[in-house]
Amino acid sequence: MYKEPASFKLDIESGVIEDSKRLVRRLSDMKGYFVDEEAWKELVEKENPVVYEVYAVEQEEREGDLNFATTILYPGKVGKEFFFTKGHFHAKPDRAEVYVALKGRGGMLLQTPEGEARWIPMEPGTIIYVPPYWAHRTVNTGREPFIFLAIYPADAGHDYGTIAKKGFSKIVIEEDGEVKVINNPRWKA
Amino acid sequence: MYKEPASFKLDIESGVIEDSKRLVRRLSDMKGYFVDEEAWKELVEKENPVVYEVYAVEQEEREGDLNFATTILYPGKVGKEFFFTKGHFHAKPDRAEVYVALKGRGGMLLQTPEGEARWIPMEPGTIIYVPPYWAHRTVNTGREPFIFLAIYPADAGHDYGTIAKKGFSKIVIEEDGEVKVINNPRWKA
Ligand SMILES: [Mn+2]
Ligand SMILES: [Mn+2]
Repeated sequence: MYKEPASFKLDIESGVIEDSKRLVRRLSDMKGYFVDEEAWKELVEKENPVVYEVYAVEQEEREGDLNFATTILYPGKVGKEFFFTKGHFHAKPDRAEVYVALKGRGGMLLQTPEGEARWIPMEPGTIIYVPPYWAHRTVNTGREPFIFLAIYPADAGHDYGTIAKKGFSKIVIEEDGEVKVINNPRWKA
Repeated sequence: MYKEPASFKLDIESGVIEDSKRLVRRLSDMKGYFVDEEAWKELVEKENPVVYEVYAVEQEEREGDLNFATTILYPGKVGKEFFFTKGHFHAKPDRAEVYVALKGRGGMLLQTPEGEARWIPMEPGTIIYVPPYWAHRTVNTGREPFIFLAIYPADAGHDYGTIAKKGFSKIVIEEDGEVKVINNPRWKA
């Protein structure tokens, strides 16, 4: 039998998709992700903020089917480093993804398995094509929530482990009031 | 080697994606699609209007890769029937698709290979999940351009032939100032 077509209401102002699955990541869920571990610990103990929320509509894992999700990535920093999403490769690494920026300001870090990194700024209307094999992480470089929509193959899956362990070869910081993309001091190729 | 990540500028007001491939469908390209053939002929001879434009960013046909495109579907009617896109099944019929309505008012007709149809209204913020196997056509039921973004597997392909020949089992018309979805008088199961 055929699956039933379905429509979902996306509130572009808030990023919320009605009747979707909500996931919340607090700063305490991101131990080891930020360079300044002292600043991380302090902020977790003080207020343990929500770093991002995801609203996802997902199908069974099957070739040729599609999932989609919005992310609301909140503004904030850990030391000099802007809030970001954990970032991942796809479990099927050759699965691509399309991102559509809806609100706020930020960007995407992408990285090959060998650690070659790219930084792409995002503002409302920016569409990013994430090619097969590139890990991807979004970063909020602004002062309001950064909201975007992502569409990805239903069988892409997530490999968070590689990034959790090694991070990205670049980090995105604020220094002298400017957004800078610099080498990650903890990076080991 | 890895494909390079890429960003594209979508102008949400106009629907145009910079550095994308543009396709234009005029009414003369849609012979046989509308029920009122006299009205079609008259309008083609009078002004042959653009019915819709597509701005597409497409990859090579490969499993797990993704394409995306905006469509600007203009307001208008042929007889009582609202302007629509040709509509298609996917050549790989089990490929899904995700539509995001950006501007204007309209809806989507969907249909199974057996001719079972659905109508889903669309307004800005509506996301439609098009499941595997369903043909899909969009319809502008408003008075301004109806603009939406679609994301689809790079190996989905298009089967326009079935719809070109048989149409949808439902048509969308204006009658007494109202939008009505009625049985297609020319439909043969
Ligand atoms: Mn992904
Ligand atoms: Mn399609």
